[in-house]
Amino acid sequence: MAKELKDLTKSEENYSQWYNDLVVKAGLAENSAVRGCMVIKPYGYAIWEKMQAILDRMFKQTGHENAYFPLFIPKSFFSKEAHHVEGFAKECAVVTHYRLKNDPEGKGVVVDPDARLEEELIVRPTSETIIWNTYKNWIHSYRDLPILCNQWANVVRWEMRTRLFLRTAEFLWQEGHTAHETREEAIAEATKMINVYKEFAERYMALPVIVGHKSPNERFAGAEDTLTIEALMQDGKALQSGTSHFLGQNFAKAFDVQFTNKEGKLEYVWATSWGVSTRLMGALIMAHSDNNGLVLPPALAPIQAVLVPIYKGEEQMKTIVAKLDAIAAELRARGLSVKVDARDNVRSGFKFAEYELKGVPVRLALGPRDLENGTIELMRRDTLEKEVVPQEGLIDRVAALMDEIQQGIFDKARSFRDSMITPVDTWEEFVRTLDTKGGFVAAHWDGTVETEVAIKEATKATIRCIPLDAVDEEGACIYSGKPSHQRVLFARSY
Amino acid sequence: MAKELKDLTKSEENYSQWYNDLVVKAGLAENSAVRGCMVIKPYGYAIWEKMQAILDRMFKQTGHENAYFPLFIPKSFFSKEAHHVEGFAKECAVVTHYRLKNDPEGKGVVVDPDARLEEELIVRPTSETIIWNTYKNWIHSYRDLPILCNQWANVVRWEMRTRLFLRTAEFLWQEGHTAHETREEAIAEATKMINVYKEFAERYMALPVIVGHKSPNERFAGAEDTLTIEALMQDGKALQSGTSHFLGQNFAKAFDVQFTNKEGKLEYVWATSWGVSTRLMGALIMAHSDNNGLVLPPALAPIQAVLVPIYKGEEQMKTIVAKLDAIAAELRARGLSVKVDARDNVRSGFKFAEYELKGVPVRLALGPRDLENGTIELMRRDTLEKEVVPQEGLIDRVAALMDEIQQGIFDKARSFRDSMITPVDTWEEFVRTLDTKGGFVAAHWDGTVETEVAIKEATKATIRCIPLDAVDEEGACIYSGKPSHQRVLFARSY
Repeated sequence: MAKELKDLTKSEENYSQWYNDLVVKAGLAENSAVRGCMVIKPYGYAIWEKMQAILDRMFKQTGHENAYFPLFIPKSFFSKEAHHVEGFAKECAVVTHYRLKNDPEGKGVVVDPDARLEEELIVRPTSETIIWNTYKNWIHSYRDLPILCNQWANVVRWEMRTRLFLRTAEFLWQEGHTAHETREEAIAEATKMINVYKEFAERYMALPVIVGHKSPNERFAGAEDTLTIEALMQDGKALQSGTSHFLGQNFAKAFDVQFTNKEGKLEYVWATSWGVSTRLMGALIMAHSDNNGLVLPPALAPIQAVLVPIYKGEEQMKTIVAKLDAIAAELRARGLSVKVDARDNVRSGFKFAEYELKGVPVRLALGPRDLENGTIELMRRDTLEKEVVPQEGLIDRVAALMDEIQQGIFDKARSFRDSMITPVDTWEEFVRTLDTKGGFVAAHWDGTVETEVAIKEATKATIRCIPLDAVDEEGACIYSGKPSHQRVLFARSY
Repeated sequence: MAKELKDLTKSEENYSQWYNDLVVKAGLAENSAVRGCMVIKPYGYAIWEKMQAILDRMFKQTGHENAYFPLFIPKSFFSKEAHHVEGFAKECAVVTHYRLKNDPEGKGVVVDPDARLEEELIVRPTSETIIWNTYKNWIHSYRDLPILCNQWANVVRWEMRTRLFLRTAEFLWQEGHTAHETREEAIAEATKMINVYKEFAERYMALPVIVGHKSPNERFAGAEDTLTIEALMQDGKALQSGTSHFLGQNFAKAFDVQFTNKEGKLEYVWATSWGVSTRLMGALIMAHSDNNGLVLPPALAPIQAVLVPIYKGEEQMKTIVAKLDAIAAELRARGLSVKVDARDNVRSGFKFAEYELKGVPVRLALGPRDLENGTIELMRRDTLEKEVVPQEGLIDRVAALMDEIQQGIFDKARSFRDSMITPVDTWEEFVRTLDTKGGFVAAHWDGTVETEVAIKEATKATIRCIPLDAVDEEGACIYSGKPSHQRVLFARSY
């Protein structure tokens, strides 16, 4: 592990390689034998489970229920909503057969040509079509509304260039799909859920995000409006971390889902969908970690405090480990997730490096001198600050430290992010800021897709969002010079 | 709902139709537009979530961690373990392409022939092959063992005749995959996990099960031994509810997974796998329910007690609902999951029928007379017993009733099951018991596959298991007359 840590690429040398090294060496995930599909390893999955549990609770608190819809979508469903098929048909896994048979030439198994499906099935890249086809049978009257369903599932998008967690052919996510009586209610739902995501990102992931509307060009395929939370990574690139879509009546019309409203008239149902995925793992890792490894906010750390004995000889070990076990029991009684690492086949220096790599928020180390003095060494992972503290009052101190670290990680990320929002008023400044500093560039835009596309082609920067809290301000588009009345946020992004 | 309940087929008239009606009408699941794939509706999914949460806790308490492996398995992986490919190749969904394109004839989208995969991918029917291909990189020395991983996932087996929950093309499950240093350790793990399943089934599902070995003919494809828990449904058919496999070194050899043992020698790793699925939902429903609807054990009921107001006029309603809200708050403070149904657009009789259909364990109804007398009407779903009880002491009474009902449902199922294990000694008795009574038939068997197959062809009964607690007893095979020294359990099954 000490060796592995030494091999961790420095982030300033190659950020992208640093990220990949970190994901693999910290035991979060790895590439599999299947192109673009990852294996999420136990330590990575434990973080994802914590995210899931918190999000699931937040969804239920806002009135949503979980359900499960089929993995497969009949090909014909895709053609029913024009923008949707445009958006997803070019990168989807297609099931064409339902049987293998022994190779007549004796080489393993081959696809049985006699077992061809009448209609091909698409492995879901998202579930609007199959869900709205189902909702058709659930919705007849306004009394059947709203429907507030969420699904935890795997989805597949055949990405050509993949990166662990950030962009994989298969990924895990949740997708909420709601059905409403009125446009206003659906818009309110989409807004409510993007705010749930914002609260989750900031409070639990310690990740400050900007909430805004996507530009029409960046909207979800089939949406009338897409709300997004945008985070900033330490290399100055933005990362879209969650989206919530107001789908209008597009899917209701595509699947003919009508209801009798309170006035007794038939009307199409209004829809939203919203999702976050294992991509959040990438955001969490890139936003906080350093050259020593992961930095995990305590709210999501599988191990919040690790206790390491320092000793010579078996006798001393027993005494010290017994003391650490007692401290660990008290910490657990305070609701903390704690590990005592009493392995005797690796040195303590190796253990220290390992838990730094794994981002454990607090490390406690107890040696013979501490035993005499009633002290213990305490290190916090986020600042790498180390101090020797009295054992008395330790439990309160560690418990309080969890909140302090959580807040500290958030504050650091927010200061950085805030320092990386640069208002610019000229094209030259715009390009220079992107090239030398990165981050979000707040600039005027004339509101046209043509300008947006031209800027992307010239700089690789896209409009990350039109912030919800953007203030009215007259100005001129940095690209076309045409009038604009609010700044939008551009950035290069993941 | 009253009408829907009336439409519920009587179980004695058509058990199979009764089951399907119940699943659909109670809002548990329904068939989807995709052949053989179901939609699990919110009420059904809420039960599954409870099962998941309990099982997940039990797995973690026994030292397992969750991870996630790819949905897709390269076709060639299947050929590596001969029995495995035999077992699964004939019923699997095959992905052959990764893109659709617009139909040149303008009719929606078609598969793009230029986007054919070099090697076809199988949608996992089970994950031994992809996981052991991954473990190869994780395991080098005995220090890397054991690996104790579990995965919650969807799997696909292209079943031709499907039934909601019991047999669907896609289903949800968990699959544990463990790797060990020794044969003994792997066997102990497989045994431990079948006992976890037994405890789960009996304690939470109130479902008595028999633990035993599968006969060689009924083993998992690739296993050296399969342990099973077998439950009995109310129509006298058996249902395999969970299995745990000792895989020997078969997958380690197929994927060349060797480790350096403590003596410094290379050795193949020993394996187990074990799983339960949404099929458990079918077992839960069929084991306990009646012609009024579901009967749910309190440990798995999404709503444990429902409170229904009986009133005339708005004034009375307000007073009574306020009282019920107060009672509900107290019940929730005791950890119970409780609902007050104050809907004013349906009559209380309709509500009663609805919650009976949905299997809510306890119903409380409060009317004007109760308000005067300080009483409340209490009904338990399992026995349909109704009594008027004092409001005083109600919270304790309802809390205690949960345990009583849980135990009552289990005892009833166990008495029935026990009454349906029939020892027989002749072929004639064997056939007659199967035809007139059903259930488990305890009979001598000569231990050969030929006899097992012949019995199945003659009677549709299979060996459900060779019980772990079978006693030594000399006898003659009911079919061949050859010597046998223990009875095995035969039954017709789902």
